[in-house]
Amino acid sequence: MKLANTRDIPPFIVMEIMKEAAAREADGGDVLHMEVGQPSTSAPRAVIQAAKDALDREVLGYTLALGIPELRQAIADYYVSDYGVKIPMERVAITTGSSGAFLLSFLAAFDAGDKVAILRPGYPCYRNILSALGIDAVDVPVGPDSRFQPTIEHLERAGGRQLDGLLIASPANPTGSMLRDDEFEMLLAYCRDREIRYISDEIYHGITYGRRARSALEFAGAAAEDPIIINSFSKYFSMTGWRLGWMVLPEDMVEPVERLAQNMFISAPSLSQTAAVAAFNCRDELDQNVVRYSANRELLLERLPAAGLNRMAPADGAFYIYADVRDFTNDSEVFAREMMQATGVAATPGVDFDPVDGRAYLRFSFAGATQDMAEAANRLANWLDE
Amino acid sequence: MKLANTRDIPPFIVMEIMKEAAAREADGGDVLHMEVGQPSTSAPRAVIQAAKDALDREVLGYTLALGIPELRQAIADYYVSDYGVKIPMERVAITTGSSGAFLLSFLAAFDAGDKVAILRPGYPCYRNILSALGIDAVDVPVGPDSRFQPTIEHLERAGGRQLDGLLIASPANPTGSMLRDDEFEMLLAYCRDREIRYISDEIYHGITYGRRARSALEFAGAAAEDPIIINSFSKYFSMTGWRLGWMVLPEDMVEPVERLAQNMFISAPSLSQTAAVAAFNCRDELDQNVVRYSANRELLLERLPAAGLNRMAPADGAFYIYADVRDFTNDSEVFAREMMQATGVAATPGVDFDPVDGRAYLRFSFAGATQDMAEAANRLANWLDE
Repeated sequence: MKLANTRDIPPFIVMEIMKEAAAREADGGDVLHMEVGQPSTSAPRAVIQAAKDALDREVLGYTLALGIPELRQAIADYYVSDYGVKIPMERVAITTGSSGAFLLSFLAAFDAGDKVAILRPGYPCYRNILSALGIDAVDVPVGPDSRFQPTIEHLERAGGRQLDGLLIASPANPTGSMLRDDEFEMLLAYCRDREIRYISDEIYHGITYGRRARSALEFAGAAAEDPIIINSFSKYFSMTGWRLGWMVLPEDMVEPVERLAQNMFISAPSLSQTAAVAAFNCRDELDQNVVRYSANRELLLERLPAAGLNRMAPADGAFYIYADVRDFTNDSEVFAREMMQATGVAATPGVDFDPVDGRAYLRFSFAGATQDMAEAANRLANWLDE
Repeated sequence: MKLANTRDIPPFIVMEIMKEAAAREADGGDVLHMEVGQPSTSAPRAVIQAAKDALDREVLGYTLALGIPELRQAIADYYVSDYGVKIPMERVAITTGSSGAFLLSFLAAFDAGDKVAILRPGYPCYRNILSALGIDAVDVPVGPDSRFQPTIEHLERAGGRQLDGLLIASPANPTGSMLRDDEFEMLLAYCRDREIRYISDEIYHGITYGRRARSALEFAGAAAEDPIIINSFSKYFSMTGWRLGWMVLPEDMVEPVERLAQNMFISAPSLSQTAAVAAFNCRDELDQNVVRYSANRELLLERLPAAGLNRMAPADGAFYIYADVRDFTNDSEVFAREMMQATGVAATPGVDFDPVDGRAYLRFSFAGATQDMAEAANRLANWLDE
């Protein structure tokens, strides 16, 4: 019996590394988890309590496709408090993780054959979801010379006005790189002038070291209504497995997304939605997580170079260090396996994020405990010194 | 800025009716909910307790893409206990509701332009998800003469060996109709001989009145490895808003589905997965729900005909009555609105399930409380008698 062409979709390699790490642990080995891009913390306490209350009180059936009004309103309020931007709650769509948001936004904005520019290195699912939908993912190779963000020249080389969409994350995965304000405005203006749909992946907002991340919604005048904003409760809000994200949509996209969501998801998980309303009252607890990420980051930025890993992307935000390992290997996937076997440190090979140049890179997530980061740095220093 | 062609996707009308019913309730009106296809009960008690325990105990991060092993094994065990079929747990994929299973199975089995036969009337999201993916949904119009299930002649008329897939639910939504064993074997053999992928939607299994529903997996020899089985915790297991479903996959489809799931969903909700393991120990409680559905069904099968609604599809299973209302209206969507305004009874117009002939039908869900069903039957009898 035939299978679809999607059988050729590459695996999300970090998930494969997770499987190998789980097997190592099942065999009694220890693993220092720096492979997976998720907080090691649970949801904030008030969210857990709200979930328990809802379990006692509610039937937890389907919700409306775009989500419960309380959560949509809480998100709209968050844009006022944290970004100074007023949006009607009707433009907020609750999704099943940012994964659901990518699927819905791609289907609502693009037809099969359309061209959507994505950065390389970048989040691998962008490319793989676009491909599964028959949309053409156009690579924009970026590197240290432009701090892993695109310039006008990059976009021109990628097709310029031939493009139908541009998808940018700031802070970015795997590099942590953030757009400067002038870069952000320039990209939005470039897209507006050429009717290129801008999708702003803001999933790492709230996790930054120094300046705060700006939302595409803040740049009024620069097509403030047109960009699609994608965010999630998985990173800053530490609710990964709850599978809850959101979009802020241009007004004319609300109905098409609602219809797609009705058909493709029915609704996001009810319990997660009800509980997540409490997340916006847990900022102190959540900011403590960021304090820990910040300590982890400083520890690694100091000790990895001493171990010989001295070329890294700018870790402006998120919880990743994207390290150039070409002095040690010409295949970071092999290197990652050897490293896990020798040291128990799990990291993600760059090919996950960059199928062309990724063999020279490894991504280390520092979302874990600080003592694990210190131990990992020790073990790496010893191993690389051998 | 352009929108995709998917902007033309029809709404899932039952969700629109839900919105109108919610607005009526917000205005202080009462609604007898017979529109939405979900149990009025919460998850079983042991599932709720397991969820609370997990909230106390677990971080609830991502799981492996195909789900936690405990749940995959519990589902494999369920096929032994309830169907007498032994399958390795590796062929079980946990999904984000059956919605996630449809998306993943369609993407894994079919390419854009492929032809997949679906019944009309049928679950509207089949058609709409297939269309959003560029797959050609081929209508198979069925009616009372074949008990709303397809015959060989139906399939031949729909293209026969030109088809790439056939998607059948037994019990079916909206009709409740179930395949007889000889029909089931015939359809499986027809598909196997023509290399047509058979997708068996078994979401209403466990909710039947008389004989139990057979799984496509039971018909050994009839391509036992090839059908894709889709099921869910939303109906019999009464866990609608938990967004949890599963597939049993042919062996060669496990890896492609895993890669698609890694990219498109990362994982199904963690808390739902952990809690659902307990659902298989709650059979008495769940069977009590079915006793109530059965009482509701008998009440309606007796009293709706007395009210003038005397032509209905065979409600062999599920919790729906698909009633022919052409004696009262030539547009059941208008009729449903008038009915809600006059009586507070919400039902779903047939156009949701059948864009061609659906204006002659209404779907009544009898998943609610028996007293609500009795009250609804009274009000309908009075209104239709006017």
